[in-house]
Amino acid sequence: MDVEIITIGDELLIGQVVDTNSVWMAKELEKEGFRVTWKTAVGDVDTHISEAIDAAMKRAKVVLLTGGIGPTKDDITRNTLCRYFDSGLHFSEEVYQNILQMFHCSGREMNALTRLQAMVPDKCTVVRNRAGTAPCMWFDRDGRVLVSMPGVPHEMQWLMTNEIIPRLTQVFGRDAYIRHHTVWVTGYSESALALTLESFEAELPPFVKLAYLPQAGLIRLRLSACTGSDEKALQAIAGEKEKLHTLLGCHILSEEDKAPEALIGEALLAKGLRMGTAESCTGGTIASKITSVAGSSRYFAGSVVSYSNHVKRGLLGVSERDLQEHGAVSREVVEQMARGALQALDCDCVVATSGIAGPEGGTADKPVGMVWIAVGRKGEVISRCFRFGSTLREVNIARASNTALLMLLELLNKAV
Amino acid sequence: MDVEIITIGDELLIGQVVDTNSVWMAKELEKEGFRVTWKTAVGDVDTHISEAIDAAMKRAKVVLLTGGIGPTKDDITRNTLCRYFDSGLHFSEEVYQNILQMFHCSGREMNALTRLQAMVPDKCTVVRNRAGTAPCMWFDRDGRVLVSMPGVPHEMQWLMTNEIIPRLTQVFGRDAYIRHHTVWVTGYSESALALTLESFEAELPPFVKLAYLPQAGLIRLRLSACTGSDEKALQAIAGEKEKLHTLLGCHILSEEDKAPEALIGEALLAKGLRMGTAESCTGGTIASKITSVAGSSRYFAGSVVSYSNHVKRGLLGVSERDLQEHGAVSREVVEQMARGALQALDCDCVVATSGIAGPEGGTADKPVGMVWIAVGRKGEVISRCFRFGSTLREVNIARASNTALLMLLELLNKAV
Repeated sequence: MDVEIITIGDELLIGQVVDTNSVWMAKELEKEGFRVTWKTAVGDVDTHISEAIDAAMKRAKVVLLTGGIGPTKDDITRNTLCRYFDSGLHFSEEVYQNILQMFHCSGREMNALTRLQAMVPDKCTVVRNRAGTAPCMWFDRDGRVLVSMPGVPHEMQWLMTNEIIPRLTQVFGRDAYIRHHTVWVTGYSESALALTLESFEAELPPFVKLAYLPQAGLIRLRLSACTGSDEKALQAIAGEKEKLHTLLGCHILSEEDKAPEALIGEALLAKGLRMGTAESCTGGTIASKITSVAGSSRYFAGSVVSYSNHVKRGLLGVSERDLQEHGAVSREVVEQMARGALQALDCDCVVATSGIAGPEGGTADKPVGMVWIAVGRKGEVISRCFRFGSTLREVNIARASNTALLMLLELLNKAV
Repeated sequence: MDVEIITIGDELLIGQVVDTNSVWMAKELEKEGFRVTWKTAVGDVDTHISEAIDAAMKRAKVVLLTGGIGPTKDDITRNTLCRYFDSGLHFSEEVYQNILQMFHCSGREMNALTRLQAMVPDKCTVVRNRAGTAPCMWFDRDGRVLVSMPGVPHEMQWLMTNEIIPRLTQVFGRDAYIRHHTVWVTGYSESALALTLESFEAELPPFVKLAYLPQAGLIRLRLSACTGSDEKALQAIAGEKEKLHTLLGCHILSEEDKAPEALIGEALLAKGLRMGTAESCTGGTIASKITSVAGSSRYFAGSVVSYSNHVKRGLLGVSERDLQEHGAVSREVVEQMARGALQALDCDCVVATSGIAGPEGGTADKPVGMVWIAVGRKGEVISRCFRFGSTLREVNIARASNTALLMLLELLNKAV
C-alpha cells in the first residue's frame, strides 16, 4: 500500500528544521507493509497546503499530514482541511477534556488559544492524542484516508504507533511485505561496483531493487524486496544475498547494516583485544567514531592526537631525525606513531594517521588529500599511502577515518 | 524569487537517509533573496520524477533537483530529464576531461560506466562540477530554470556556492532582500529564553522573524528581515540586535554565526596561544571539532583521549590513589587530567572531560549523563560538574563537547 507524507510549516522550508519526522514514519510504516512513495513539504500557506493535499489524494490511498495544527496564528491546516473536505467546525467536549488533562499533568495554565484546539471539523473522526493537546484528525473519502497529526515528534510518534498504523492496517489489511538486506562493500568505486554487478542487477526479479549508498571510502549496498508474500520477499532476499556473496566475496565488509566502528568493536570483544589510535590529520575523528559505540570502554584504551611534532616525539616516540628527513606525512613517521601508540596506550592493536587534510599545506609531492595510514599490533605494522584527492578538509578527514577503520578491521579479521 | 527543490532517491523515502541537502540549500538561497516555497521528495521512478518536475515548473521559476544522476542503474534522472525536455544525449569531451581529471586526482581507475557520465542532454547547459564526476545540468524553458545536481552533499554544495546561486542571481536579479543576524546564546533552556523574549518577539515588525535553533547546550538565535529594500532590512536587524543585547547581555556568546570551535581558534590566534584536550567520555569529539577548522594546526597541539585508567595515569599523570578513592568521574581526576595535558602536550590551555556517556555505567550518585569538565592554563584550573541527563550516548557526548568548548571560550575571553 502506497502512502504519501505531507509536512507542513515554514521552518521546514527555510532551513531551520531538519525533517526527521517523515524518516521515522517511513521506517515504522514499512514494518507493516506501507511504502512511502512521495513526500511534500509546504509552508503555512492555505493554497499550497490544499494543492499538496489534492495532488496526494489523487495519487495515494493514504495521505499523512504532520504539523500546522498548533494553537498559534500561523497554524492554518485545520481550516484548510475544513475547506478541502467542505466541513464545518464544532466544539468537542471530549477533546477539551483531553486538553484539560494534558495541562493538568504538565502543571501548565490553560489559555484561550488552547481552548480553541477543541474545535474540530464535523467531517473527521477525532483520534485522541494522549501525548499532547492538538487533536489528531482522520478523514475518509472515496476509500482514501487522510490523517492530520501534530508535528511535535513525540506526539506524532505516539499517535502513529498506538493509533494510526494499527487503524490503517485494519482498514487496508496488508497487501505488501517489504524486506531489506544491506551489506557494506569496500575496495570499489561506485561505478566499478556497478560494473561488477551489471548482470546481477539485470537478472534481479522485478520486485527486488538494488540501491547504492556511497559513503567516504565505502558503499552501502541495499537489496529491497517488496511483494505480496513475506515468504517470497524473504526467499528472494536470501537468494540474491547469496549471489552477492559469490560476486563480491571478501569485498563484503559486513552482512549487517552496521558501521565499521561497530564491527571493530565486535571483533575486538570476540578476540579479547584492546585498541587505540594515534591521529594526526584525522584529529580525533577515529577515536570519536570508536567511542560513539556503547560499551566501547571495554576495548578502547585511548588515543594520542599528535598534531604537533612535539607530541609526536614526546608521547609517541617519533624520532626527530625522521621528522626532519621525511616530514610528518611519511611512512617512517606514521609507522613510528603506530608503534609508539601500542606502547603508550598499552593496547593490542592501533591505527595511526598522518596526512594533509587541507585546504592549505599541500605541496607538489605531498598534495592536499594525501594521507599515510598505519595499522599495527605487537610485532606487525602495515602502512599505506592514500590520495583522497579532495580540496575539502572534511571530505579528506572523513575518507581517511573510514579507510583507517577498514584497514584495522582487515587486520582484525585476519588476526588469529 | 520563489524556488522549489526536488530531491530524488528511494533512500529519502524509506527512511534510510535524512535530507539535509535541501536544508543547506534553503539557507544559502535565502542569503541571495531566493526563498524555498515547496519541497518534493520522490523515488527513482521515472513517472514520479517527471510528475514532480512538471508540477514544480508550473509553480516556480526556479526548480532545483538533487540526486539520481550517479553512474549506477538506479539513477535514472538524466533520462527522465531528456524525455521531459524532449532532448537527445551527446558525448561531451569537456565533461569527459573533467571526469578524467577527477579520477586522476583521486588515483582511481576510469571505467565504462564513468565514461557514460560524459553523456549529456543536448538541450541543457552543462555546468562544470569541480567537486565530482556527475555533470550538473542547467535547463532553460519559457523563462524558467531547472537545474539538476548530484545528491552528494559536498558536490551539491560546491556547485550551489560557486556556480548555481551566482548564475541564478545573474539571470533573475533580486526582488527581495533577506538579512539575518545570528547570535549564540548560552545559559538558557529554549522555553526560558522564549519567555525572556516574549514581549521583544511581540513587538517585532511583521517583516522580521525570530528563530530559535537549539543545539546541545546552546541556542542559536536568528533574526531575519525580508523586505524589498536592503537598507530597510539592515536597519531593522541593527535595531532589533541592539534590543537583544540589552535583554540578554552576557548570555550572548558570540555576535557572529560561528561555531564555538571557530571562535576558539580566532581567540587562540589573537593571543598567540596553543591548546590541547584531555578527553575521557567525549572520546576525541572535542579534538575532532577543533581540528575540523582549517588552519587549526597553528594553535592545536594535540589531545590525549584517556579512556583507560592506564592512559590517565601513564600519559596524564593522574594519581592511582585518586582514581581509587574518587573514581575516574570526579573533580580530582578531571583536574589532574587538565594539568597533565598542559604538560604532556606542552600547550598554554586545555580542556578535560570525564563522565558517563551511557547508556550503561550509571550509578545512583554518578548517573548516566554526569560529566566533569575542567578548563585550565598554567597556574589555573577550573572544573564544574554537569548532569546532561539524557539516556542517549550521542546526546550526552554532544552536550559535554559543546559545554567544554564554551568553558574554554570563557577562559580565553577573560584571559589577559
